[in-house]
Amino acid sequence: MKLVRYGAVGQEKPGLVDRDGRIRDLSAHVPDIGGEWLAPARLATLAAIPVDSLPPVDNVERLGTPFAGTRQFVAIGLNYSDHAAETGQATPTEPIVFTKAVSCLQGPDDDVRKPRDSTKMDWEVELGVVIGRRASYVSEEEALDYVAGYVVCDDLSERAFQLERLGSWDKGKGCPTFGPVGPWLVTADEVGDPQDLRMWLDVNGKRMQDGNTRTMIFSCAYLVSYVSQFMELQPGDIITTGTPPGVGMGQKPPVFLNEGDVIELGIDKLGTQKHTVRAWNHGK
Amino acid sequence: MKLVRYGAVGQEKPGLVDRDGRIRDLSAHVPDIGGEWLAPARLATLAAIPVDSLPPVDNVERLGTPFAGTRQFVAIGLNYSDHAAETGQATPTEPIVFTKAVSCLQGPDDDVRKPRDSTKMDWEVELGVVIGRRASYVSEEEALDYVAGYVVCDDLSERAFQLERLGSWDKGKGCPTFGPVGPWLVTADEVGDPQDLRMWLDVNGKRMQDGNTRTMIFSCAYLVSYVSQFMELQPGDIITTGTPPGVGMGQKPPVFLNEGDVIELGIDKLGTQKHTVRAWNHGK
Repeated sequence: MKLVRYGAVGQEKPGLVDRDGRIRDLSAHVPDIGGEWLAPARLATLAAIPVDSLPPVDNVERLGTPFAGTRQFVAIGLNYSDHAAETGQATPTEPIVFTKAVSCLQGPDDDVRKPRDSTKMDWEVELGVVIGRRASYVSEEEALDYVAGYVVCDDLSERAFQLERLGSWDKGKGCPTFGPVGPWLVTADEVGDPQDLRMWLDVNGKRMQDGNTRTMIFSCAYLVSYVSQFMELQPGDIITTGTPPGVGMGQKPPVFLNEGDVIELGIDKLGTQKHTVRAWNHGK
Repeated sequence: MKLVRYGAVGQEKPGLVDRDGRIRDLSAHVPDIGGEWLAPARLATLAAIPVDSLPPVDNVERLGTPFAGTRQFVAIGLNYSDHAAETGQATPTEPIVFTKAVSCLQGPDDDVRKPRDSTKMDWEVELGVVIGRRASYVSEEEALDYVAGYVVCDDLSERAFQLERLGSWDKGKGCPTFGPVGPWLVTADEVGDPQDLRMWLDVNGKRMQDGNTRTMIFSCAYLVSYVSQFMELQPGDIITTGTPPGVGMGQKPPVFLNEGDVIELGIDKLGTQKHTVRAWNHGK
């Protein structure tokens, strides 16, 4: 099942995508797709609705995040060995965990904004794991039972804020608009093995990242288990699992994003995003 | 005004504390004290209610967090120069920002739990700044206009997870129960100058921390402005602003928390907390 939320910012309605790729309105069945709707029993309720009974929605102008209510947006650093190499950093011996501010979450195609005083804005295509049930101290073996599904995530970053401003990486990871997620939340049953998904990212039509989740250092199951040793994960939380090689910082010489640049990215089975870089105060 | 939430976990009701220290039931006026109730106009609505018209509540068995709906729990490291010295780290040249998982938030007197495999659990009395309005790129001069009020916060930490496990400090700051907040949310008008508040913390009756917010390196106004350059702050968000000297890690030799230890802490005008350390799986 592919869940979506569509409509203007703050007024999104819940929907799902039928086999022809058309959005169907779910609002007669669920007020919104919040974390509480990501539990296995709730997802089964939605999956049992005859799709043909749902009103089709045409002329969709905007997609929001495909679910609401995320309270924790956890991110993993340097989780592809080739990416660690391109950044000049050692392959981590255990997962690097940092946090993206949940206030940066937005729809997959919404404009992204270059922060004030930004000089090193960068892209990162990533597989986002969406939690469906409270997870604390779960084992690697059972970890995927706590996963509702997966999303495409662009882990936008400001490298100067991230790496040159003391302390954690968090300063360069949660700037407004730095968390495009979607287009769909694809449920785990439909994705199958999360460690065999091709992923790519283009900037202005040029292929910059071309990877596959099979080259992750730490698997999705390992990461859910690992993070749950340090915090309680809750329904709607996202763990974004690191990026393959090809970020701007890794180019020789480095390349960073400027106003007007267009980023397109996608992951097998999970859909694509397309967003344009604007000034921090664009439209304000 | 002192706002509180009282009752069993997940069933808290909203209230306020009258001038005699008694809780009054606010539930006829507000369903819960969520972030949307922390805006200046909403707080003014609550403040205008004649306190004597509110039913007094006796036999309060538990306090929850004094407001609900926190989505971002931001923390500042090494923000008291003496504390930086006791940890052996340099005084920071700009604020160190990290994140506490919001899932660790709990009431001021709830048991705290020593995480599984924890060897270095530590305490930190801190002033928590509570955001009342969306804040993005705000100046230091206007920053306190975005503050709804203040809370006592015990920034519980696991030093081995924080400092010996790669990456950010987040692994040692957001373990379940590591965020006791309260007893009250005291509105900014009632607190006055946030840079002149005495704060203290006892472990098993022994005074370990005895400080004052006037020795912060970066003031509350500076921190709200600073953090708002890197992320959008939202109503109900908390910035906990660092701890004065006297943490366990700074003792010679270091002292860490064990099951059965009792922690009491407080800040002028903001009330006190008292919680007991239990095993990670206590009561499960």
